Amino acid sequence: MSKPFILVTNDDGITAPGLKALVEVASELGKVIVIAPDSPQSGMGHAITVNNPIRIDRSQVFGKTEAYTCSGTPVDCVKVGIFQLLKKKPDLIVSGINHGSNAATNVIYSGTMSAAVEGSMENIPSIGFSLDDFSHEADFGPTQHFARKIIHKALNSDFPNNVCLNVNIPKLPLRELKGIKVCRQAMAFWEDRFDERKDPLGKKYYWLTGKFKDQEEADDTDMAALKNGFVSVVPVQFDMTAHHTIGRLNQWKM
Amino acid sequence: MSKPFILVTNDDGITAPGLKALVEVASELGKVIVIAPDSPQSGMGHAITVNNPIRIDRSQVFGKTEAYTCSGTPVDCVKVGIFQLLKKKPDLIVSGINHGSNAATNVIYSGTMSAAVEGSMENIPSIGFSLDDFSHEADFGPTQHFARKIIHKALNSDFPNNVCLNVNIPKLPLRELKGIKVCRQAMAFWEDRFDERKDPLGKKYYWLTGKFKDQEEADDTDMAALKNGFVSVVPVQFDMTAHHTIGRLNQWKM
Repeated sequence: MSKPFILVTNDDGITAPGLKALVEVASELGKVIVIAPDSPQSGMGHAITVNNPIRIDRSQVFGKTEAYTCSGTPVDCVKVGIFQLLKKKPDLIVSGINHGSNAATNVIYSGTMSAAVEGSMENIPSIGFSLDDFSHEADFGPTQHFARKIIHKALNSDFPNNVCLNVNIPKLPLRELKGIKVCRQAMAFWEDRFDERKDPLGKKYYWLTGKFKDQEEADDTDMAALKNGFVSVVPVQFDMTAHHTIGRLNQWKM
Repeated sequence: MSKPFILVTNDDGITAPGLKALVEVASELGKVIVIAPDSPQSGMGHAITVNNPIRIDRSQVFGKTEAYTCSGTPVDCVKVGIFQLLKKKPDLIVSGINHGSNAATNVIYSGTMSAAVEGSMENIPSIGFSLDDFSHEADFGPTQHFARKIIHKALNSDFPNNVCLNVNIPKLPLRELKGIKVCRQAMAFWEDRFDERKDPLGKKYYWLTGKFKDQEEADDTDMAALKNGFVSVVPVQFDMTAHHTIGRLNQWKM
């Protein structure tokens, strides 16, 4: 049997340590091709490049492993892979390892997860991995341990159609990680704040900042799993219809 | 009773004719403030600006109506409004009128709709409007007619919590529009293609292009409504959990 064909991407860009960590794990389990943004694309959500051309360049960052940079977003990287560079559909797309959590509603802002969602729209099994640690020097060892397990399971199980997985790993040493929990996306939100500053010309500018606040006390969410030392796995789909409100809106008699 | 307070935004930028059309309608129904991107932001999805500062400038584009440009994405515009510029939460956020359809899975790529989704995350009733016509000279008259009706209903009804509306209008004269249909997001996808070109230096670049293909024959989707001459209204929520697959993933025994 031939090795599974795995497309690896991310949103922190081709030189991010998290990408290197994921390429290492994916290379143990399959034949890898890397297509990653040529610059950081954090918070790009499901953005695509429509008003500008896209550049694609061969990269030697991963030595013998075939790798490309893309001037676009993480979703562009997946589209470029599927519709331009690859001769056949990958068996799996993995995205990350993101520097920072993508739990709860962060799934919507996250370039890492949007790449995985784009894969699921093409019905390719896709997984985004994120470590709850923003540091460039983060220890990806424990995340690699769980990524290996989850990728192996994904390649050898019946992966649900049009679904991807949002995997988040708490910042803990391996011995303190309690296992894996399949859970739902928490209702947690950013309380944003704009940090007001002045540039050298005296003109105001703002940095987006804020605090992430969990609004629930439930124990079946990804936020709860992470808080309790578990790796969270949320299956993610892209039908955004609020089906439960269709009846009510029909009563508006528009 | 004081007039409802309406925040108007879009993704085509402050000078787009579609924004002007929406500001006109919103101004009939409430007190309006405009915060729109200073440049086109089509296809930005739920992107936010985290690696760069944001600029906010007062704009005179709408005369006496208070208006601001924002250097960020449509979602940034909503965040800037709620957390920086506005003294109180708006009663309603309207986004658009987008030049081009945002039906089906386009909701995920759309800056117009992501602004509305961001509003719903703050539990503010939010509506995105899109006309299925990319032309800069599109006739927004029929869309204004329906936008007026829908905004009026939204302001005078019990708007569902944490939900926004994705309203799409087919490119038809008013007399041929058959009414409004509440429906679900269709399973329709882009078959992407990358148009390969060479720049003056002989180096390759690519433009994202493609065809949008409906995968279903169902009659309860937004694509079906539009095809049959109806204005489509899809209630949109942001819990992306694939709840129906949690049981199955638990059987993976990770």
